[in-house]
Amino acid sequence: MQVIDSIHALRERLRDERSVVFVPTMGNLHEGHLQLMRIARARGGCLVASVFVNRLQFAPHEDFDRYPRTFEADREQLASCGVDVVFAPDEAQMYPDPQTYFVEPPPLGGQLEGEFRPGFFRGVATVVLKLFNIVRPQVAVFGKKDYQQLMIVRGMVRQLALGIEVVAAETARASDGLALSSRNAYLSASERAEAGRLYRTLQELRSRLVSGERDFAALESESVTKLTKNGWVVDYVAVRKQSDLQSPRLVDQDLVLLAAARLGKTRLIDNIEVSI
Amino acid sequence: MQVIDSIHALRERLRDERSVVFVPTMGNLHEGHLQLMRIARARGGCLVASVFVNRLQFAPHEDFDRYPRTFEADREQLASCGVDVVFAPDEAQMYPDPQTYFVEPPPLGGQLEGEFRPGFFRGVATVVLKLFNIVRPQVAVFGKKDYQQLMIVRGMVRQLALGIEVVAAETARASDGLALSSRNAYLSASERAEAGRLYRTLQELRSRLVSGERDFAALESESVTKLTKNGWVVDYVAVRKQSDLQSPRLVDQDLVLLAAARLGKTRLIDNIEVSI
Repeated sequence: MQVIDSIHALRERLRDERSVVFVPTMGNLHEGHLQLMRIARARGGCLVASVFVNRLQFAPHEDFDRYPRTFEADREQLASCGVDVVFAPDEAQMYPDPQTYFVEPPPLGGQLEGEFRPGFFRGVATVVLKLFNIVRPQVAVFGKKDYQQLMIVRGMVRQLALGIEVVAAETARASDGLALSSRNAYLSASERAEAGRLYRTLQELRSRLVSGERDFAALESESVTKLTKNGWVVDYVAVRKQSDLQSPRLVDQDLVLLAAARLGKTRLIDNIEVSI
Repeated sequence: MQVIDSIHALRERLRDERSVVFVPTMGNLHEGHLQLMRIARARGGCLVASVFVNRLQFAPHEDFDRYPRTFEADREQLASCGVDVVFAPDEAQMYPDPQTYFVEPPPLGGQLEGEFRPGFFRGVATVVLKLFNIVRPQVAVFGKKDYQQLMIVRGMVRQLALGIEVVAAETARASDGLALSSRNAYLSASERAEAGRLYRTLQELRSRLVSGERDFAALESESVTKLTKNGWVVDYVAVRKQSDLQSPRLVDQDLVLLAAARLGKTRLIDNIEVSI
């Protein structure tokens, strides 16, 4: 496995590859990332993973500076998954000037996560486009854990004619259902014991939809109440259409239930799909 | 010379090319475009020209619908310049959905042309990025006639890590100095006789800078007055730095003089560089 930190050297390395499969990450890898790598590995071709904590997608008050950086451990895990090339640029490679050209996503980018993290999806879309331009993959793998991000990357790929196949991977979970996330490491022991409730709340919401309940607003609101009573500060629990993440009408069948809430200082997100 | 109208077929055609040189156009070709083609041809490799009138860069009140479409003549001219592939997509190829993901340029995109054509540079940057993503050139050639556009394409290429060499071509002019432009065809005979004044005004401005005058605002304003007296409706005459198109300080030496003005219903732009 090669570790490459410059754009120029990476382009040289990949120049003659006929098929490149790409998994972008911000490092601090966990089993969820490794599942992405295995899905990518199974596609054949040259497997490139990137490790880059993207300042552009953090708001000023967010955790960019304390975001966990664990490159040596990440490198070993990537090697164990059969990654061929790790692209690990520093800030000066990715942002030699202050970034002033951005990919501006549609209004969806200002909803849900975008409402609570202004500029987040602009930052995500811009860095993902830059990484795509550098790596030039045929296939890229993203996790469903960041469902809205996946939708926005898919939209960008289609609308900017990038010609990349975007593969979605299921969310990896701990035994209590907590979606794996780098931010779980911020949880105290008692918060960690509580954290599984986010997924259970979404599961209960799903059960009630499956059994025929259709008052989406009431179901959302009950879920928020339940979490709040247990010490969560809820940003949203939302029933949305899978196709465009807008509010469903009664005829819509393929839905996704999304939630974001804080436990102490740690903000967690999760989602599950449901077809009714 | 091949003419290709689908993205898929173009990608197939270019898959094994080691070096692609690209010249995007909106068709209605004149000698200025052909000079771009000759510069591109001299670079070797596979020469791709595109012909696509980009709705996204026209404001609602502008001339998208009446913009001249002359594909048969364009095709003959491109063949005579040694173009290998003409990419001539229709609207459905380039914009299968209404475009909702955009490249948002920096504040420069709202100045000069951007002040008078809101959304213009967002539309230009977005379509140029899409064309770059489709054609995947190593080299792209743009004319200095659209100086601000050239700057914005250069900025986008650098900041989005596109890895494309952007080559700038000098402005082609008629014998009276009028910069060649598709929009010159809109001029009446008397307007055409007057049109050369735009370039002469910039030349006079350049002479005065070269001879040591430094009151940029007064020089701009005198140029506007002169054009207005001769029947022009002036959007701007501006002395700017070549490096970033911002207003120069007295120490700046590499300047560009830019103007935009209407003669009847036709809006013309021009610019000349000067080092003082």
